[in-house]
Amino acid sequence: MERNGFSFEQALDLLHQKKYAALRSLLSDAEPADIAEFYEQVSGNQYAIVFRILPKELAAEVFVELDSDLQQILIESFSDSELKEVLAELYMDDTVDLIEEMPANVVKRILANSTGETRKTVNELLKYPDDSAGGIMTTEMVRFKQNMTVEEAFELLRRVAIDKETIYTCYVTDVNSHLIGIVTVLTLLLASKDALIGDIMEENAICVSTLDDKEFVAAQISKYDVLALPVVDAEHRLVGIVTVDDAIDVMQDEAEEDFAKMNAMLPTEKPYLKTAPFELWKSRIPWLLLLMVSATFTGMIISSFEEALATQVILTAFIPMLMDTGGNSGGQASVTIIRAISLGEIRFGDWFRIVWKETRVALLCGGTLAAVCFVKLFVVDKWLMGKEITFLIALVICLTLCVTVLCAKVIGCTLPLLAKKMGFDPAVMASPFITTIVDAVSLLVYFQLAKYFLHL
Amino acid sequence: MERNGFSFEQALDLLHQKKYAALRSLLSDAEPADIAEFYEQVSGNQYAIVFRILPKELAAEVFVELDSDLQQILIESFSDSELKEVLAELYMDDTVDLIEEMPANVVKRILANSTGETRKTVNELLKYPDDSAGGIMTTEMVRFKQNMTVEEAFELLRRVAIDKETIYTCYVTDVNSHLIGIVTVLTLLLASKDALIGDIMEENAICVSTLDDKEFVAAQISKYDVLALPVVDAEHRLVGIVTVDDAIDVMQDEAEEDFAKMNAMLPTEKPYLKTAPFELWKSRIPWLLLLMVSATFTGMIISSFEEALATQVILTAFIPMLMDTGGNSGGQASVTIIRAISLGEIRFGDWFRIVWKETRVALLCGGTLAAVCFVKLFVVDKWLMGKEITFLIALVICLTLCVTVLCAKVIGCTLPLLAKKMGFDPAVMASPFITTIVDAVSLLVYFQLAKYFLHL
Repeated sequence: MERNGFSFEQALDLLHQKKYAALRSLLSDAEPADIAEFYEQVSGNQYAIVFRILPKELAAEVFVELDSDLQQILIESFSDSELKEVLAELYMDDTVDLIEEMPANVVKRILANSTGETRKTVNELLKYPDDSAGGIMTTEMVRFKQNMTVEEAFELLRRVAIDKETIYTCYVTDVNSHLIGIVTVLTLLLASKDALIGDIMEENAICVSTLDDKEFVAAQISKYDVLALPVVDAEHRLVGIVTVDDAIDVMQDEAEEDFAKMNAMLPTEKPYLKTAPFELWKSRIPWLLLLMVSATFTGMIISSFEEALATQVILTAFIPMLMDTGGNSGGQASVTIIRAISLGEIRFGDWFRIVWKETRVALLCGGTLAAVCFVKLFVVDKWLMGKEITFLIALVICLTLCVTVLCAKVIGCTLPLLAKKMGFDPAVMASPFITTIVDAVSLLVYFQLAKYFLHL
Repeated sequence: MERNGFSFEQALDLLHQKKYAALRSLLSDAEPADIAEFYEQVSGNQYAIVFRILPKELAAEVFVELDSDLQQILIESFSDSELKEVLAELYMDDTVDLIEEMPANVVKRILANSTGETRKTVNELLKYPDDSAGGIMTTEMVRFKQNMTVEEAFELLRRVAIDKETIYTCYVTDVNSHLIGIVTVLTLLLASKDALIGDIMEENAICVSTLDDKEFVAAQISKYDVLALPVVDAEHRLVGIVTVDDAIDVMQDEAEEDFAKMNAMLPTEKPYLKTAPFELWKSRIPWLLLLMVSATFTGMIISSFEEALATQVILTAFIPMLMDTGGNSGGQASVTIIRAISLGEIRFGDWFRIVWKETRVALLCGGTLAAVCFVKLFVVDKWLMGKEITFLIALVICLTLCVTVLCAKVIGCTLPLLAKKMGFDPAVMASPFITTIVDAVSLLVYFQLAKYFLHL
């Protein structure tokens, strides 16, 4: 915990010794994110003390970085005037996040201690869906008029800078608030003092609409390498901006959600160590139950071949290998396709190209696996372990491998695309789900081939 | 392809009709990232034409966004003076990326057409490991001296701005190039003209070291919400910066790599549709082979119980369900832990807390699954399907479920931590690998319990 940041031990020592002046000066030089981490080590009755010794502005910045349960504890310990001070320092998107996470009675207190202006904006912002551009944007941006000079623009900047989430990209609007251009501070610096904003602004600026998906917004910020994107309403009026740091959070949340869904879990919001076992259970049990019950089909397939199996018990030993290889092959294809859909690299129209590609990959993989398996069956299983492997048994096993891998890859790439087409989340069509289907397919193929070649 | 961006169809029409002036004006207003996407639709013999009609600076920006195979084709079509022009516009980190991806003869030409200064810097940068801060940083940042006034600083900014990757954060160094502070343009704007940089700069700025892992650097940028981080050498001399757009790329690459590794693939660099089947085969076959061969153990376990199984064939039908549930349970735990390690949320020292948490989750999950399974066995399997399910068989199956889920969760959380501790990549300890181990465990448990309760 050294490097960037400060020594938590030293800070805790100062706190226990009640050397508050020294603690204040130590924390004043620290980054909000580090102080928030330090908070987790402080015991409950000292939260308010540590918070009160921070300079006002820093206190608000730290507040934003805290977990929502800590935020709630703090708010409940605040006097009304303290709460007002913190709220005044928050950006609008942070205020909205706070309100969305607090219980009703705390929300009531927050709104009662906000200015009328803030209440109005918060109510506007709360109308947008959580996962839309409107739901994550903030309203603190710098607006210029076309007929301002660069000098006037700089004056305005200096006056309002402190309350804006970013000043490095400024937005030019007409009298009806329509977005007509953007100007960066770099452009301002390079222009002459009396140039008009309308002449130096970039027209046709990239923008997103309030109802665009937040993941699309983040992808646009990443694609165009911008520090912020303006958000416009249906009439192209500028209503907010999304900044790059919020885009990073969206991308990270999205990746974590995909990791969870692809592995048969419902996403949880908190860090692992803070999630209670019961919450983990809630996120994991639904898919486990569903997948367990759907495995009934594989059981039925095996049951219907019970008699045949009894005559060639050796076949049973290869069931796990065939199922696992099928599951892994299908998982590879589905995860690749799900991520490519997520990143906007492919769409449903590419289905034929994708299936053709996966078919060739499957033939290459299946062929390699079958060849290696064939050799392994005779060298390891027959020669070393003395099992009764005949040529026909080896043929059935290796053919099953090939067909299973082919089916697994085609199913693995088709299901996510189909899900997307039908408006579902492709991520839930991932390995665990594919595994269950591929299990059934591989068993059917195995037993049919065994029936045919071994005359069971 | 509308929205942000321009109509690719219109641009292709203009190109085919050789209306180059109109095409030039259409492209001049477009974003580099969109033009690069448009490039993919252009046929090979027209690459150079489309590139030459772009304004010089825009051409270089588009060049950076292109795939490396397109870059190579273009460079090979460039005259030396054209190459010089493009190289002069590139930032140092982009030049290094280019050199790392081009074949030797192209690299020779690139170096021959670079200035001596660039060659020297590139050689310095190439010495850092690819995955270190030094390997991804660029050297184009603004440096101030402590005794400059704000006015002088603005003058310097205006003069050098055009060649710098970012101007919004500037770095203050002493005569020996040691980093002693940072100043943002916001601070400059709010300060009086004759204030000294040394007085307004932020000391103790967050920085990273050249050899820090690039994923650590990206995490720091995200944690502290900064637009750029300074990179210092062992003597705390400022040698470069990493900007937020590069951090986003690092985070995305990292997530994609984790997705690939966790699903038994070696990461590929290109987008899916551009990756040849043979390359996909290369990325997928190693793990498939390894996992197939290691499934020999499950085969051995089943073989050693062949005789016992022959007397109670009904037990075979539940093998897939038990294996899949174990695999899914273990996968849930391993993926959760791998991501938490990746995000820096947990470390090896937390092992005991994690195992204790997973144990409780496993008991909850195992208990639920066993209860549902018990009911299902009697209602679906016995009553509806007429299978011969006795109480003892149901007991064996449900107990196996509980023990398997417990083992799967504990193995699933322990192996990634162990891998991390031993310096391996935790991501390869993911579901497919865990599945193979859990398969063996679940079969052993199943057969031992069956032996005990059913006296096989």
